[in-house]
Amino acid sequence: MRLASRPSGWPTPENFELAEVRLPAPAEGEILVRNLFMSVDPYMRGRMNEGKSYTPPFRVGEPLDGAALGEVVVSRAPGLAPGDTVTHRYGWREYAVLDAKEARRVEEIPGVPLSAYLGALGMTGLTAYVGLLDIARFKDGEAVFVSGAAGAVGSMAGQIARLKGASRVVGSAGSPEKVTHLVRDLGFDAAFNYRDGEIHEQLARAAPGGIDVYFDNVGGEHLEAAIDELRTYGRVAMCGSISSYNATEPVPGPRNIGLVVGKRLTLRGFIVSDHPARLPDMIAEVGAWLREGKIAFTETVVDGLENAPKAFIDMLHGANTGKMLVRLAQ
Amino acid sequence: MRLASRPSGWPTPENFELAEVRLPAPAEGEILVRNLFMSVDPYMRGRMNEGKSYTPPFRVGEPLDGAALGEVVVSRAPGLAPGDTVTHRYGWREYAVLDAKEARRVEEIPGVPLSAYLGALGMTGLTAYVGLLDIARFKDGEAVFVSGAAGAVGSMAGQIARLKGASRVVGSAGSPEKVTHLVRDLGFDAAFNYRDGEIHEQLARAAPGGIDVYFDNVGGEHLEAAIDELRTYGRVAMCGSISSYNATEPVPGPRNIGLVVGKRLTLRGFIVSDHPARLPDMIAEVGAWLREGKIAFTETVVDGLENAPKAFIDMLHGANTGKMLVRLAQ
Repeated sequence: MRLASRPSGWPTPENFELAEVRLPAPAEGEILVRNLFMSVDPYMRGRMNEGKSYTPPFRVGEPLDGAALGEVVVSRAPGLAPGDTVTHRYGWREYAVLDAKEARRVEEIPGVPLSAYLGALGMTGLTAYVGLLDIARFKDGEAVFVSGAAGAVGSMAGQIARLKGASRVVGSAGSPEKVTHLVRDLGFDAAFNYRDGEIHEQLARAAPGGIDVYFDNVGGEHLEAAIDELRTYGRVAMCGSISSYNATEPVPGPRNIGLVVGKRLTLRGFIVSDHPARLPDMIAEVGAWLREGKIAFTETVVDGLENAPKAFIDMLHGANTGKMLVRLAQ
Repeated sequence: MRLASRPSGWPTPENFELAEVRLPAPAEGEILVRNLFMSVDPYMRGRMNEGKSYTPPFRVGEPLDGAALGEVVVSRAPGLAPGDTVTHRYGWREYAVLDAKEARRVEEIPGVPLSAYLGALGMTGLTAYVGLLDIARFKDGEAVFVSGAAGAVGSMAGQIARLKGASRVVGSAGSPEKVTHLVRDLGFDAAFNYRDGEIHEQLARAAPGGIDVYFDNVGGEHLEAAIDELRTYGRVAMCGSISSYNATEPVPGPRNIGLVVGKRLTLRGFIVSDHPARLPDMIAEVGAWLREGKIAFTETVVDGLENAPKAFIDMLHGANTGKMLVRLAQ
């Protein structure tokens, strides 16, 4: 799947182009992988723009990329054999030839579906884990607010907070079904639909004692509301701002940013790719919770590479619950 | 000096009221102090408003307070004797009776004027020291931008950065005289007048390689410009936002706050009163620089308690260079 053109505002199917190409045979040190799943993630929207970002932009006429999971078909590298399952960064395609050093072999945990290694046990889980524990420095007994809480990262962040002893976990989402899902399936203490009214009022009602940590996937009005409700020494893990990704005008910043001084708040941005060293810790901890059934792992799966653009666009509109994945082969 | 009424927007002399009262004799454990200097500081503007802040609001009809330095006249407490110089928090008055435990005896450094213990060697110096080193975690070789750089805290923050090995120190101020002062007297590498044009453009010219640390005394457009110019892993010490203190409408927040994610920025607010343990370190280090003439210590001094409201209001308008003080007695 190639980038056909750069979107202005919301992307459309016309920004994407499916192509069939002949792959080279793997050279020495390379592998051929048949992709089973690929991930569509909010950060990819930024890569569709021109100009520098923390990841290089996609190039018009060139294939897109992103996290994928597949099966090794041919290996010309030591340590990887046909049949091995690997994760790598050549998504948006059915087959990939890549340097074996770019692939990570999956150590399967019994009972955990393969797709989880792109979500709860992959970059998604790591984002939630690092953001909550290392960036926001969440501590046992604190109250946590997660925006975009029914999304891939948000649903993990809220559940990790609960399992790590949060006094209260509050989430926002964009539909009544998602709000129900957060409380009923994921164990959030309270949740609200941000489309239902003023976010600040809804947050204040859902977290009457205030919050200590805000895990921000959304930005905009959510961030402003959280700054109002944060207690002294509160922290914000700034993970994303999906509310602004498709804006064609600058989104207003938080008008109450001056409160950061008097409340001694910390707002800290992060990118999961800076934190690979924490992956084993996350897999050990979250993997155990998965095995014990303590953590729910929700996916929205779409079939076929031809449907990947729609899956991506739908995800930006919030159509998914949990991790949005495209299944590329059975 | 009492608070006569709460201002809406900029304070005026009518918000203040001078009164003469009879002081009680010091009780056991108390001291009578004749104040020599008092400090007027931006944070006091917040205390003139009703409603909670990080320090309790001033009360209408009650005396104002704030940092002061004076001479002990009567002591009924062990450890303090008449003639001792002390700092305490009962400014805005010529004499004060207070619990000796609320007073801090000044260990005078030869050649350093008494007023310095309210400024460079007092809360002002500690604010700059803690903000730069502990909050922004400035490291040798980094580029630093200080707003309100000709003010009390800003002029110290910029000089400490220079003496600690900054690769570049850039300051903003509100007049051509102050800009000259920053470069000529305080050793800033570059400075600009924020009234001269778009702050972002001026900052980009003054710090062509970007900045690693922003010491924010101003907020508003300055903060937005700094977020644009911060390099990856940059830090902001949020010390104050004087641009908004007298606003009657919410000041727009930084529209580029989303950059905090991709650049992995940290924005952290602080209040100097949380960091008393660092006072001895600051006095040792800054005191040595003062003795060696490596740090310039600028004051704007106004005489007489009756002129304190004007000094305070002028300081909010930026009339001062360096620390703004009121001399209450010779």
